[in-house]
Amino acid sequence: MEPLHDTIRQMINISESEMEGFLKNCLIKRFKKKELLSYPNSIPNEVFFINSGLIRVCLTDNSGTEHTIHFALENQFICDYSAFIRKEPSIYALETLEDTQVVILPRKSIEWGYENMSEGNKMGRLIAEFYFIYQDDRIKNRYIRTPKEIYDSITDVFPNIHNRVPQHMIASYLGITPIHLSRLKKLDFGKS
Amino acid sequence: MEPLHDTIRQMINISESEMEGFLKNCLIKRFKKKELLSYPNSIPNEVFFINSGLIRVCLTDNSGTEHTIHFALENQFICDYSAFIRKEPSIYALETLEDTQVVILPRKSIEWGYENMSEGNKMGRLIAEFYFIYQDDRIKNRYIRTPKEIYDSITDVFPNIHNRVPQHMIASYLGITPIHLSRLKKLDFGKS
Repeated sequence: MEPLHDTIRQMINISESEMEGFLKNCLIKRFKKKELLSYPNSIPNEVFFINSGLIRVCLTDNSGTEHTIHFALENQFICDYSAFIRKEPSIYALETLEDTQVVILPRKSIEWGYENMSEGNKMGRLIAEFYFIYQDDRIKNRYIRTPKEIYDSITDVFPNIHNRVPQHMIASYLGITPIHLSRLKKLDFGKS
Repeated sequence: MEPLHDTIRQMINISESEMEGFLKNCLIKRFKKKELLSYPNSIPNEVFFINSGLIRVCLTDNSGTEHTIHFALENQFICDYSAFIRKEPSIYALETLEDTQVVILPRKSIEWGYENMSEGNKMGRLIAEFYFIYQDDRIKNRYIRTPKEIYDSITDVFPNIHNRVPQHMIASYLGITPIHLSRLKKLDFGKS
């Protein structure tokens, strides 16, 4: 669990006994490529920390069309966080796009952290702020960036994504067609 | 500052001396309708709590078009929170749509709260989670709700908004034209 230890220590001061208490009910699990970690219509009671691999968040709309909403890479947390907080059924599926190893953090570990770790709520605040900023940027991008600028910035958010994720999923995440994505990529080649 | 006291006490346990320390550098300020509280291109160093009135968050895009991004009502906090957290220039203007009274919480008060209040970080976590969920719902709505459903839910988020805010600003917030908004409203009248 070294990567998770490091990620936590980058956010807060934590004693050995606090770390032990926080992680004692967490467990490591391996998933093959194209497996589901989490299903729509169920209340998420776990947060995943990715040791290795890549997870896609997706949903199927009322017309049956699948949309890619988010990607999560190594050393990141992932779950339907608003459904987790509200204890409501998620609308998302979480699917591995590569063989993936995660640490599963159950709800009771996170609540234990808030109640018993001196900086548990600080960690929760920093994580919530991080994902608020991520969502807020997506809202802002609609107004201030062109599709080309949003395309260009995707590797800042998800490094090396083009080599790891099929293009039609990237197009779906960007809210454009695969043909449009292919045109944006050609603009890049035109530069060189 | 009673409404702010109540809002804080709904989130956390706070002693009298903590409340006093947290609020000692905060001040009440009154703005007339159509005044600006916060400007684009400046780093926001204050969070506003609305005692009475209504504030609109807006931005002007590169083509000169103004967009309404958000409304904030009584007993809510408002600022460009991601610019505040990142200490970066905001792209937003905050404008009063009614005569408005706010409590100004300077950055140093908020940082004091994180460092000195036993549940300061819990309050910060709950506020960040609240706004994360708000932004996350806006992202989700794009996929799972029709424009009519989004229109119908706006009064859940902003009660009584139709009597307080010009229709063209509500249309802009919803990302539709005023004509489209007028059609959605007619669908409502058709029901009765």
